[in-house]
Amino acid sequence: MTTNTDARDQLIDLAADFYDQFAAGEIPEMELPTRTKSNIEYDEESGVWTYGDRTSVRSANSVNGARKLLKAAYTIEFLAEQLDEDRSSTLRELYYLSESWDNDEAQFSSQDESNDLVEDLEIVTGATREDFHMRPEESGAKVMGPLRLREQTNRGDRDIHCQLDVGQGGYQIPNNPDTIEFLENDAEFVLCVETGGMRDRLVENGFDEAYDALIVHLGGQPARATRRLTKRFHDELDLPVVVFTDGDPWSYRIYGSVAYGSIKSAHLSKYLATPEARFIGIQPADIVEYDLPSDPLSDSDVNALESELEDPRFQTDYWEEQIELQLEVGKKSEQQSLASRGLDFVTETYLPERLEEMGVA
Amino acid sequence: MTTNTDARDQLIDLAADFYDQFAAGEIPEMELPTRTKSNIEYDEESGVWTYGDRTSVRSANSVNGARKLLKAAYTIEFLAEQLDEDRSSTLRELYYLSESWDNDEAQFSSQDESNDLVEDLEIVTGATREDFHMRPEESGAKVMGPLRLREQTNRGDRDIHCQLDVGQGGYQIPNNPDTIEFLENDAEFVLCVETGGMRDRLVENGFDEAYDALIVHLGGQPARATRRLTKRFHDELDLPVVVFTDGDPWSYRIYGSVAYGSIKSAHLSKYLATPEARFIGIQPADIVEYDLPSDPLSDSDVNALESELEDPRFQTDYWEEQIELQLEVGKKSEQQSLASRGLDFVTETYLPERLEEMGVA
Repeated sequence: MTTNTDARDQLIDLAADFYDQFAAGEIPEMELPTRTKSNIEYDEESGVWTYGDRTSVRSANSVNGARKLLKAAYTIEFLAEQLDEDRSSTLRELYYLSESWDNDEAQFSSQDESNDLVEDLEIVTGATREDFHMRPEESGAKVMGPLRLREQTNRGDRDIHCQLDVGQGGYQIPNNPDTIEFLENDAEFVLCVETGGMRDRLVENGFDEAYDALIVHLGGQPARATRRLTKRFHDELDLPVVVFTDGDPWSYRIYGSVAYGSIKSAHLSKYLATPEARFIGIQPADIVEYDLPSDPLSDSDVNALESELEDPRFQTDYWEEQIELQLEVGKKSEQQSLASRGLDFVTETYLPERLEEMGVA
Repeated sequence: MTTNTDARDQLIDLAADFYDQFAAGEIPEMELPTRTKSNIEYDEESGVWTYGDRTSVRSANSVNGARKLLKAAYTIEFLAEQLDEDRSSTLRELYYLSESWDNDEAQFSSQDESNDLVEDLEIVTGATREDFHMRPEESGAKVMGPLRLREQTNRGDRDIHCQLDVGQGGYQIPNNPDTIEFLENDAEFVLCVETGGMRDRLVENGFDEAYDALIVHLGGQPARATRRLTKRFHDELDLPVVVFTDGDPWSYRIYGSVAYGSIKSAHLSKYLATPEARFIGIQPADIVEYDLPSDPLSDSDVNALESELEDPRFQTDYWEEQIELQLEVGKKSEQQSLASRGLDFVTETYLPERLEEMGVA
């Protein structure tokens, strides 16, 4: 976690670079890694995919390029002030706020433009959006399990036990989970769950109590805050992480975003991704073994599976075997289809068997 | 709120009706209100829109009809058992669970079918899905404000103050907010907010503290739990409710679902809708008055506005004036566009002015 002062200094340094280039009679420019699929590489050391060596240059040698750097300068000024005042804002507010800037040329013409610029600033400074105090639109999901934490809010610290001090809905992950300090925990592992219905089933059946699991609700494609907190559970509490989703190619991507990061945010993989996270199911092998209610794969499912076979993040023996099996049987199943064996099958049979197989619990 | 025993008895009564019809040599049938737009009426007494007098009959006089009643009988048995055991399940689990029933004819062929059946049972018994302990897939949103409540969870009671005992993310509304008891509150009004970005802005700026507001995050189209809790705040704590959304036709529908209920769930309006809820903005008049950053109305926006002019729920002088103004200026604006006047404009100027105009605070 970068402090307000660090992030602010990194931004100011960047503005100082522009200034120095001007002073030296050079055309100001900013160098960035090329952000395409062909420029992501596996980083052996950290086990995540990050940008490679190819770079692109944003230069003021065209009107368009000069305007981009002008916008960067205005944004840096706004962010530095925001950090000074210990405030925060959303990406969308930044976009609208640019209308109040005194130079019309500095106004963003679309929100994509301001979003992209903030990502550029993350990459160039090595800080994160959260360090700049930019909040996401989507909120993080919720946690239930044997953990007492302290959240630093702008109204003071709050000590919360994620079973004893929360309702059935659990502890709501704040936008920036780096404001959380872990106080005490009895957890054995982290179980990330895709759907709300399954999360509620596990909580109703007391799975977090019986297995000392931290149940993290992903809620579809997980927000950055959810992925960051999951990574912190793994790294700081030394807990194994397993991911439980539907058994279809779109859900494997949800697993992928927890474990490997995404191409769009490859510069943040070391901050957001948990490469040690393992997939617990629904596996194609489970659809066959438990004869789960299923739907036939659609054409777009088949295309997505084939594209995963080509995706470097899925090129392991495990995933090749599972994806090929799924293409062969032509079926997909949802997590909740386990209910066809009764409402307790998932907590009394399926998860315990899988966790034992995986050597987790 | 219906107790487990009440809901169970109502279901059993329905099954008993089928039995009696059989015993009397009649073909069993079930009568339901016709669920179309043409059969919803304004209920003067409660101020909400409910189903009118037209009814349809589900009769076992065809194979298809007989199969529907068979499925109803199996579902009633499952729900009665669930209530006996004080457990709960999701609609999706019910669908999958039907695969385990001993009669193949009773299995649902799609989830739409099981969802519709549960709605039918709500209508016929006068109980709600929550009374049957059917959980939704979507979870409720979150609350921040001066309220201490007691939530009855399946692990015991939890006393929670929705400012002092929660993190920045607030109190997570449980699936069934009828498990909540209100202990103490200093709230003056309820402010329902559409987007997460705006909710976070209000919380960061301490609006709930400064104005003693209960800030309820709607998160787009609000879940039943969120609407139910809002209604309880109004009815039981006697608090005015205002709804703050983007300024476009889709957001007016969000307001409408809080205030008037939906056609699909008109049988639940008395349970879910808060007809006294008022719209605070973004009003078309605000787009003009504050010269907010806006986007042009698309064709589908125009169509949606025109269809709202025809919708009985929007046939008030206020809405006709606002919608006609919007069609005239041809613009829509998001809540967060208020940031073009600075990050504090919404909490220091816009909301205080509107609340005073409306006589709320």
